[in-house]
Amino acid sequence: MGTIRMNDEERTRMFNESAIRLSELYKGKINTVSKVPVRDLRDFSIWYTPGVAAVSLKIAANPEQSFNMTGRWNSVAILTDGTRVLGLGNVGPEAAMPVMEGKALIFNYLGGVNAIPIPMRVKTQDEFIAVAKALEPSFGGYNMEDIESPKCFFILEKLQKTLNIPVWHDDQLGTASIILAGLINSLRVTGRKIADSTVLLMGSGAANIAAAHLLFAAGFKPGNIIMADSKGVLEPERQDMDSLMINNPWKYQLAMTTNEGRIKGSIENAFKGVDVVISASKPGPDTIKKEWISSMNSDPIVFALANPVPEIWPHAAIEAGAKIVATGRGDFPNQINNSLIFPGVFRGVLDAGARGVNFQIMVEAAYEIANFVEQPSPERIVPTMDEWELYPRVAAAVAYKTVEMNLARKSDSKQGFLKTATEIIESNRKIYSKMMESGLIKNYFGDDKSGR
Amino acid sequence: MGTIRMNDEERTRMFNESAIRLSELYKGKINTVSKVPVRDLRDFSIWYTPGVAAVSLKIAANPEQSFNMTGRWNSVAILTDGTRVLGLGNVGPEAAMPVMEGKALIFNYLGGVNAIPIPMRVKTQDEFIAVAKALEPSFGGYNMEDIESPKCFFILEKLQKTLNIPVWHDDQLGTASIILAGLINSLRVTGRKIADSTVLLMGSGAANIAAAHLLFAAGFKPGNIIMADSKGVLEPERQDMDSLMINNPWKYQLAMTTNEGRIKGSIENAFKGVDVVISASKPGPDTIKKEWISSMNSDPIVFALANPVPEIWPHAAIEAGAKIVATGRGDFPNQINNSLIFPGVFRGVLDAGARGVNFQIMVEAAYEIANFVEQPSPERIVPTMDEWELYPRVAAAVAYKTVEMNLARKSDSKQGFLKTATEIIESNRKIYSKMMESGLIKNYFGDDKSGR
Repeated sequence: MGTIRMNDEERTRMFNESAIRLSELYKGKINTVSKVPVRDLRDFSIWYTPGVAAVSLKIAANPEQSFNMTGRWNSVAILTDGTRVLGLGNVGPEAAMPVMEGKALIFNYLGGVNAIPIPMRVKTQDEFIAVAKALEPSFGGYNMEDIESPKCFFILEKLQKTLNIPVWHDDQLGTASIILAGLINSLRVTGRKIADSTVLLMGSGAANIAAAHLLFAAGFKPGNIIMADSKGVLEPERQDMDSLMINNPWKYQLAMTTNEGRIKGSIENAFKGVDVVISASKPGPDTIKKEWISSMNSDPIVFALANPVPEIWPHAAIEAGAKIVATGRGDFPNQINNSLIFPGVFRGVLDAGARGVNFQIMVEAAYEIANFVEQPSPERIVPTMDEWELYPRVAAAVAYKTVEMNLARKSDSKQGFLKTATEIIESNRKIYSKMMESGLIKNYFGDDKSGR
Repeated sequence: MGTIRMNDEERTRMFNESAIRLSELYKGKINTVSKVPVRDLRDFSIWYTPGVAAVSLKIAANPEQSFNMTGRWNSVAILTDGTRVLGLGNVGPEAAMPVMEGKALIFNYLGGVNAIPIPMRVKTQDEFIAVAKALEPSFGGYNMEDIESPKCFFILEKLQKTLNIPVWHDDQLGTASIILAGLINSLRVTGRKIADSTVLLMGSGAANIAAAHLLFAAGFKPGNIIMADSKGVLEPERQDMDSLMINNPWKYQLAMTTNEGRIKGSIENAFKGVDVVISASKPGPDTIKKEWISSMNSDPIVFALANPVPEIWPHAAIEAGAKIVATGRGDFPNQINNSLIFPGVFRGVLDAGARGVNFQIMVEAAYEIANFVEQPSPERIVPTMDEWELYPRVAAAVAYKTVEMNLARKSDSKQGFLKTATEIIESNRKIYSKMMESGLIKNYFGDDKSGR
């Protein structure tokens, strides 16, 4: 165990050093470039005045035309207030930028989406909401990121109700969706049914609160879910319920509706006899004890998702009897990784010109990911990031579900959406290759060996 | 004259048709692409977690580092509320998008700037200001565009005072700067001195109110300037002064400080005996009468800047005695064109990491443009858009002036700034050529002959 941690720290240090060195050289990760030809300056009479006036007038007559005549159809803003950046806490909007740029890169690389990082300086949730409402006409969707809880719940709920574009908070909805995908296959591997399975959600932050709701939407019984936070198990008689009701109504509501067996007290009580533990809690490796896992039902399923160090090392969980272990890391099997979900989901909602996104659409996406794994096994409950066919497939499933739910501006068959998504993503990856081959993307890596 | 208008309408119709057809095909004018290599997915451990955390921490310790380690140094938001788009009026933010995308294209093509179009839905000037304040951490500068007057004055003044990045309203500052550049050479050609020249500013909207202040900064005497609007000449005893004081303090203040000769009444009175008329008024061709020009001093200078049709056709102005005529159009000599100024100004303020921009810097930019024309003549008082050396030269002049004024985050010699700007702009144009050659930018023009 000591060895594993040492290697881990060394590797992270290497990535950190490369990141600093290369960030100073590249000064940003994305550029804007033309997607239209400029044969010579006279073409600005088409792209700008006087020609452009005719396009403006068409959109003025029907603002929905902005999805057909401008880049809005493929443009997503990555919004954050920088209050909960990675594991670093409230480092502010400027410091959030390198993370959001990285996210924009992944959006583009895996999903062919034009994502614009917009960290903002706002104090209250109302200010955040006001900015997001103001910018709506410029974008086809919002991806929110790294916002502290419970502020993030207020903001997401309000914006989803108010806006006519999909609003996604990846730390809630992305994480919940990929958890569900992994869980679907875990239940398949261990021969369980959704309606009968009991699940402990350890940690009641953004990810697990969203996960609880998504599990309900997928058919898990609320009574079969137990939630816990750092103070122990959530249940209606817990001492802080009055304060929760005011400060975190989402947590309060779940405390009232889950945990049919009325388990109380410390977290270890809740492990006893459950089938699944999903932990999005504090980094380990000793946050979850081996004996807790041993107290679970047979063939227990353990998702230990804290980063950089999972709540328990996978080998320890398996020694304690776990049948399936998933983590947030790429160096162990079963990485529960948001990058498997958000690029395809956004490709899908954008291709459908979606007015919103909801739990049913997320369930659809989760099943598409689970079904992508042809032979799920304890070491393979989710795909890996380099399985390129995944993203267009998720996109098509999402886009088509959007049509079924009457949330789409653009209708097509599932096959049609698959073709569209595949073309966009593949053509985008070709641009990357060509730009790297031709030296348009400069190579400052030198002999950098991070991760190699 | 009839023939000229017919051709003009025909040409505009052709541009309009091409713009609609091509906008539906291209669906947007700019893409985001990576500027960093992605050798394989492992590189996301540098560009995203875990490596990126180290970059965030460095910026959290000193937010100014966001100008060195993220794309902020080269990133400009194009902000508008869509209340005064081109000559179309208040068409709203969605309809403003095609115009802002065109502007972003020019920013990129001529200045190597990453410009992000952000039309927003805001009702009041305070809402506009709140959004602009919130987004500051994401950008190195703001270009505002197509905002109705007098709202645009309030917003510009407030944001310039509040923010630590350059805030530019192109309809005010861009137009004023290129007017000054043209005026400097016009005075040279006609053998006049700034301190002695009398100028009528016809129209008191965004452009001319800014022009008045810029002329003061350049050494014109306030008393030698006369301003007029649709109600006639501005002067302290005009009947609407009380209402102006409240609703448009900028216009009010100019009414109090200009027009030393206390000219009153209708606009034609103000033409008599002035050296220069700068008209940014309603489209012509009969907004300015020939006899008004004949009543000006000898060798009069006439800038008739309304679009699409100037306040008087150039040939008519010359028949009436004008020595120099400038318009807003590219098909006559002396096009007073914002595209000559904003790409270089922004390249300059960005290269200097400027905390702001002011009238002295604009005067410097105007002189650089004027001096770029080696032998000014009545038909050549400003450069044309295809004189590529112009933009880096303006950038260097602006950047260096920013250093002199203690507004720069990054210091360099004028020669050093010239080298930087030249490299950025040239490398950017190479990207365009390569992308067009290699088919990365698709050619849907077909046999489109707009403007050819």
